[in-house]
Amino acid sequence: MKNFKIGLLALFCNISMVSFSQESDSVIISKIYSEALSNEWSYRVLEQLCKEAPHRLAGSEGSLKAVNLLFKKLQPIADTVYLQEVMAKRWSRGKQEEAMIISGGKSRKIPALSLGGSISTGNNGIKAKVIEVNSLEELKKFGKANIEGKIVFFNHAMDPLDMSPGRQYGKNVWQRFSGAKEAAVYGATATVIRSLSNSLSEYPHTGIMRYEDSIPKIPAITISTLEANNLSRELKQNPDLEFFMHTWCQSLPEVKSYNVIAEIKGSTLAEEVITVGGHIDSWDTGEGAHDDGAGCVHSMEALRLIKHLGIKTKRTIRVVLFMDEEMNQVGGKKYAEWVKFRNENIYAAIESDSGGALPVGFACSANEKQYAEFLKLKFLLEPYGVTRFRAGGGGVDIEFLEEMQVPLLNLVPEPQRYFEFHHSANDKFEKISFRELQMGSATIASMIVMLDLKDVFN
Amino acid sequence: MKNFKIGLLALFCNISMVSFSQESDSVIISKIYSEALSNEWSYRVLEQLCKEAPHRLAGSEGSLKAVNLLFKKLQPIADTVYLQEVMAKRWSRGKQEEAMIISGGKSRKIPALSLGGSISTGNNGIKAKVIEVNSLEELKKFGKANIEGKIVFFNHAMDPLDMSPGRQYGKNVWQRFSGAKEAAVYGATATVIRSLSNSLSEYPHTGIMRYEDSIPKIPAITISTLEANNLSRELKQNPDLEFFMHTWCQSLPEVKSYNVIAEIKGSTLAEEVITVGGHIDSWDTGEGAHDDGAGCVHSMEALRLIKHLGIKTKRTIRVVLFMDEEMNQVGGKKYAEWVKFRNENIYAAIESDSGGALPVGFACSANEKQYAEFLKLKFLLEPYGVTRFRAGGGGVDIEFLEEMQVPLLNLVPEPQRYFEFHHSANDKFEKISFRELQMGSATIASMIVMLDLKDVFN
Repeated sequence: MKNFKIGLLALFCNISMVSFSQESDSVIISKIYSEALSNEWSYRVLEQLCKEAPHRLAGSEGSLKAVNLLFKKLQPIADTVYLQEVMAKRWSRGKQEEAMIISGGKSRKIPALSLGGSISTGNNGIKAKVIEVNSLEELKKFGKANIEGKIVFFNHAMDPLDMSPGRQYGKNVWQRFSGAKEAAVYGATATVIRSLSNSLSEYPHTGIMRYEDSIPKIPAITISTLEANNLSRELKQNPDLEFFMHTWCQSLPEVKSYNVIAEIKGSTLAEEVITVGGHIDSWDTGEGAHDDGAGCVHSMEALRLIKHLGIKTKRTIRVVLFMDEEMNQVGGKKYAEWVKFRNENIYAAIESDSGGALPVGFACSANEKQYAEFLKLKFLLEPYGVTRFRAGGGGVDIEFLEEMQVPLLNLVPEPQRYFEFHHSANDKFEKISFRELQMGSATIASMIVMLDLKDVFN
Repeated sequence: MKNFKIGLLALFCNISMVSFSQESDSVIISKIYSEALSNEWSYRVLEQLCKEAPHRLAGSEGSLKAVNLLFKKLQPIADTVYLQEVMAKRWSRGKQEEAMIISGGKSRKIPALSLGGSISTGNNGIKAKVIEVNSLEELKKFGKANIEGKIVFFNHAMDPLDMSPGRQYGKNVWQRFSGAKEAAVYGATATVIRSLSNSLSEYPHTGIMRYEDSIPKIPAITISTLEANNLSRELKQNPDLEFFMHTWCQSLPEVKSYNVIAEIKGSTLAEEVITVGGHIDSWDTGEGAHDDGAGCVHSMEALRLIKHLGIKTKRTIRVVLFMDEEMNQVGGKKYAEWVKFRNENIYAAIESDSGGALPVGFACSANEKQYAEFLKLKFLLEPYGVTRFRAGGGGVDIEFLEEMQVPLLNLVPEPQRYFEFHHSANDKFEKISFRELQMGSATIASMIVMLDLKDVFN
């Protein structure tokens, strides 16, 4: 009986300690959200980034302005700030593209954007008939006989009924990424790609494409979803209509560029590092507000919140703002090489690269035991609407750390309107909500603090 | 045993019928969402409303332009469209307000808006010392001795940590609604109200206020949350600073205005009516995109979706676009009177007046049995993220129907960023996402069709 009583007592003590610790966890988190939601520092950093350095393709003038700006903004809130040199291949759009649908003696100009990495049309532009294609099977079926000398128009739409826009992007991105080389096999002169958006709008959405050395290179442009619908309809009425495009884009020599890194040193486990980041570079057509100015300031604000609130983490917190996510990922690769070379212990890596909308969840890639511990944090963030905890975390920049068995996480913002902004001129500061952005930063800061405090990945 | 077998068979038949019926329900709903997400008609109606008739306070020129525009847009999609006359009291802001903080020999202009219904300051404006007040208890404690001749600055902030911004609005709206008359009791010369927003921004947010006949009328203006924070800080440094305000607003004679009503006739129960609506009028400072252009086009698009998809509802579907929600609710009152006079059977009334963001739920006020049936619809909308089904539905315009025991419903859009737009110049068409808006319309159309098809409120 005595033993039983002691056992019971121990059990009670245990429960009481757990509930005390839970209470203090939620108090810490509420302090983080409270500070984030009543301070506009990072929102103004984002505004400045968007307005002073809007076009930030790797190696561009805008990207270097952004490096300088973010470096300066990090100095007052971090213990150390430094630059990590990378060599960035450049690609430049040149003058604004011309695109035109010519049908029945009439021509109509439409907005268009060269895809990143595309060659230009040359001085005379390209004028040709158009063949609409919705799958690789269809392309193959049409074959050289129907395609040679024509412009291939890839028009498979993202299914708007799919409530996972990211999945739809994944299913359809082959058109943008590989459409030109696939069409060139059959002798196409150029490609026109339906923009990757699940909304109807007048904005073309650009993004990276790739050639293959053994296949002729042909120019690739994208047109808006609305104009893709129009072109498809007009083709049904007049299969002989012609499309004219004139583009000036080109690849340029490599230049020096930088990751921007800032740290606050851990107290007792300083050699263990929690990395949190977004990417500095952005497409050259908008301001890169959602993609990925938001991720940069999410990370910076998370650092500021921890420092400002006097939260002493055991581990070192390191913000890494990566260069060149959009084209060649030299920043992500360089950071991973450097970590490997120094044999660093990265305790966890978090990326925010899905926009600045309301945070609704976290994704995590880790081993089974670590993932189970990660799931236990869910109840702490649920009061803030962050309820979707799932497997499969990562991010283009941090995935190079995976071979070192680093647990990878990413913030999941509400995804429904993301592809209205993504890679288009519509990705502007004005499309970011103060409250939604700050909720995202608070969510990341809370995750960092809890990973550290509760030794989740031990 | 035989009986048991028959019983089992009957049970199987039942299950199979139920699952067939569920399948066809979900097929209908997916058709509704699919059409909504690939048609931009209502988004363009909203754009036109916002750009051609942006300032739509009841009785204003903008409000009458909007009546004409919406009437015309409804004609091709409804069986009948008609106007319902109302008499609208007018209030006009006049010239742009001047507001200034004068401290230590320096003065600084800040943005300000008169509250709706306020008197003006008169030709010379008002300059006085300021006393900051955060509650009625504090006001009473300061008393006449500290308040007389001063401007009372009501600065109680909406708590940003509250994840229900609507609840925070409810808790704090007394400052805007009654602040002036409360302060006037103690001899204040004017009031300055902190804008009702849970975000930090430079936009003042206006809204209706009321006087009481037995209490002197004093002018009331609102300043942005950022400037309210500044003023509060500056007052701590210099309690003797002065505030200057000059406003030109006035009440004007009543004018004729209209509710706009459109119907499609039911097939077998045409005398039963499902009402769906939003309000036409908006504050005079923005474009009234979220409040409540979105609600108007949600309702119009719901009608279009039902008609376009050839869904034959048993009951009559009636869109009611109300006039004057913001000031005196003459449209809502008139509609309820008319329904009562005609002894109509309103089967359900739905309002959308919480903005055009992503739909996340539905609220419903009905009797216990009806509410239980309403909850059974939840699983049909969950695949679209519409998961929050709760009690307490209504809306300022449809609540006048409550005495007739009409079940009242309202769409619940994601609320976090709503108070960044509400009643401010920031409430613009550009702040509406196509996809989020269309999801809202599809959600309402689906609710209407299911209420009718499944006789939910019988």
